[in-house]
Amino acid sequence: MAEPLKVGLAGLGTVGSAVIRLLDQGRDKLVARCGRPIEVVALTARSRTKKRDFELKKFRWFDNPVTLARDPSIDVLVEVIGGEGDPAKRAIETALNAGKPVVTANKALLARHGQKLAALAERHGVALNFEAAVAGGIPIVKTLREGLNGAAFTRIYGILNGTCNYILTRMEQDRLAFDDCLKEAQRLGYAEADPTFDVEGHDTAQKLAILASLAFGTKIDPDAVYVEGISSITLADLDAAAELGYRVKLLGVAVKTQAGIEQRVHPTMVPKDSAIAQVMGVTNAVTVDAEGLAPITLVGPGAGGAATASAIVADLADIARGVVTPPFGRPTARMTAIRKAPMQHHEGGYYIRLLARDRPGTAATIARRLAQQKISLESIVQRHAAGSRGAAQPGRSGEAVPVIMITYATSEDAVHKALAAVRRDRVVSGRPQVIRLERA
Amino acid sequence: MAEPLKVGLAGLGTVGSAVIRLLDQGRDKLVARCGRPIEVVALTARSRTKKRDFELKKFRWFDNPVTLARDPSIDVLVEVIGGEGDPAKRAIETALNAGKPVVTANKALLARHGQKLAALAERHGVALNFEAAVAGGIPIVKTLREGLNGAAFTRIYGILNGTCNYILTRMEQDRLAFDDCLKEAQRLGYAEADPTFDVEGHDTAQKLAILASLAFGTKIDPDAVYVEGISSITLADLDAAAELGYRVKLLGVAVKTQAGIEQRVHPTMVPKDSAIAQVMGVTNAVTVDAEGLAPITLVGPGAGGAATASAIVADLADIARGVVTPPFGRPTARMTAIRKAPMQHHEGGYYIRLLARDRPGTAATIARRLAQQKISLESIVQRHAAGSRGAAQPGRSGEAVPVIMITYATSEDAVHKALAAVRRDRVVSGRPQVIRLERA
Repeated sequence: MAEPLKVGLAGLGTVGSAVIRLLDQGRDKLVARCGRPIEVVALTARSRTKKRDFELKKFRWFDNPVTLARDPSIDVLVEVIGGEGDPAKRAIETALNAGKPVVTANKALLARHGQKLAALAERHGVALNFEAAVAGGIPIVKTLREGLNGAAFTRIYGILNGTCNYILTRMEQDRLAFDDCLKEAQRLGYAEADPTFDVEGHDTAQKLAILASLAFGTKIDPDAVYVEGISSITLADLDAAAELGYRVKLLGVAVKTQAGIEQRVHPTMVPKDSAIAQVMGVTNAVTVDAEGLAPITLVGPGAGGAATASAIVADLADIARGVVTPPFGRPTARMTAIRKAPMQHHEGGYYIRLLARDRPGTAATIARRLAQQKISLESIVQRHAAGSRGAAQPGRSGEAVPVIMITYATSEDAVHKALAAVRRDRVVSGRPQVIRLERA
Repeated sequence: MAEPLKVGLAGLGTVGSAVIRLLDQGRDKLVARCGRPIEVVALTARSRTKKRDFELKKFRWFDNPVTLARDPSIDVLVEVIGGEGDPAKRAIETALNAGKPVVTANKALLARHGQKLAALAERHGVALNFEAAVAGGIPIVKTLREGLNGAAFTRIYGILNGTCNYILTRMEQDRLAFDDCLKEAQRLGYAEADPTFDVEGHDTAQKLAILASLAFGTKIDPDAVYVEGISSITLADLDAAAELGYRVKLLGVAVKTQAGIEQRVHPTMVPKDSAIAQVMGVTNAVTVDAEGLAPITLVGPGAGGAATASAIVADLADIARGVVTPPFGRPTARMTAIRKAPMQHHEGGYYIRLLARDRPGTAATIARRLAQQKISLESIVQRHAAGSRGAAQPGRSGEAVPVIMITYATSEDAVHKALAAVRRDRVVSGRPQVIRLERA
């Protein structure tokens, strides 16, 4: 039998431990599939003394990931330390410079430095694989990089953050407020103690930047992503969505427009009967649209030790077989600078929820402001305050009543201008809620 | 720039023409992705004089696919002739024997001779790629072969035939009979003049045999697939399914059981809220289950020129990049003979629709026969004939009334024995309808 592929593993959290377990359990299968075993031979982690569910002494120990990365005893580095800076970054650079392929699950690092790291891998003719970095158990990186090479992608969008999808699912199904669902997600280990990175959309943005690069052949630019999280979403929005035939999901969307490539992360109204609307709980999903092709959707586990480790092992298997593909599907010299489509030019339908003062003329004022921006309405729902129901005249209390509107396609700019004017007219109270619609 | 990859294309139907178009339109993108152009240089088809939507004289013409396959002017053969025999088979063998990689969309040929062809490709160290052979536009072959190498698959199932799914969707949505939907499918070009191959499940069976081999590392054995089509499905079944929380789909299912590997194609009741139940029209979908992993589902176009050509181009791109993977994910010597689980040992839930004579004792007789086989019921719906509604006594006319039952998990054998006994008791008329349930 051929020589084993010797793995140096940097990071021993949930994912690192799962990689050890999976390589051990799947040994025979991997030999059958790759023609050689894949073996972890050396480790590094923050603590050497922490209790583990495997025997540490079977492996060589390194205190420093960088030393591990350049050690001649390993053929390939698996980096599951995380974080966009050192030691993860230096360890990966060191391995690539030593001519060793790298497998990483580090989306933050890739979003920030993926371009340079890919160039480094290319210079040394080795693989830099990162299936685990986006939508853990779903083979979307391979699909974009190799599975759909003939396709001219026009849009890629998806549910890329399990925490947010879990929260939105629970809010809808159990009629709970955002904060309560977040606490529940934290209790179950689906959300971090500091949930900002997940719930404010930054995690999704990093993943989207990577997917956009793979789909469109552009240089990764996480700063070009417009980001809005889900913390402002209320049960009232979910109820209104349901009533109007939609469901709210936090989507990452990258789309080719005439103005360039739009990359955006925001709560999104998707048609209730669309495939993406059916994706519940911590599950992830990605849909790709290409010219002349019906959409292709991949659905599966987005995170968790087993799913992430499974992606890492698949990447290792490619390396064991000797497959080297350019990390982003094409040589870095062929990746073009992204032409960023400004968000104010975004075009699409909008959901708008206002709290309007319940007195004569309010509706007319709102309608006029929208008309001035050439915004047409697909639907409008206005509920009068309880006291004024059935009254001959609208209430004169000035009490606030919700007005919910779905617009036909218009521009971000027009919506902002119309709502600013409505607020200046003092016919609404509070900040209007705006949620973009997406064809799905 | 590196030398182009020179393609010999055998077959110029919808798919062949789409391959020419796609390679032409995607030329620059493919150069960027593969480092070299991919060019069709030579053609063969049944008719040289038929009108085409491209200029025939740009390409070398061959009258015989086998001559094309061995011609030194081509680097790779794309076979889209179809059919499990010659000339497709001989052309592929000739190309492989000449050390040329092959891309094929020919599921019939692969299901029958895939094992031998893979061995031949292996002997010559060249690729035999067939992404287009199963679920056209969905990259399921690559996903099973390379994307989930770490996973220990336990089950793979899917909607693999667009014709059947279109018919079942139309029946349900427009309340039409099977025959009417079939005619409509034929009119739209979704079904062949002779629809037997599609509607009786044979097309699904061939695809399933290929997927099972990829998932379980077993030798392809299309004769080990139990096959049942959808022509016996009635609106009454779809209505009963809806009422009980299910939807009927033609599934191909390959599953590891203690008795071996079960491969079966049959109309299936899937929970209405499952991902697979949402797949409508000609769309295909495949779900894979693996130990310790949440299910992964791929949804997309199953057929059509563009989707199939897209898969062929992706396969060509891998070849242009120099990637050679064993056709079935592992060397043929490592593929094991399939241990076929006999269908009579199949275990699962069952939907049973009987036409029972509406007279005293019938229900008791049926219940006794089921109990004798240790079959428990999850639900039972019995409707009395219109005339006997609200009557103090059941009708005595002997008129037939439908009885619909969903069983808890039992065995195929038990169901057959119980129903045979019920028929011998002469309390039912006609043949009972039996549809298997699948967890999804």
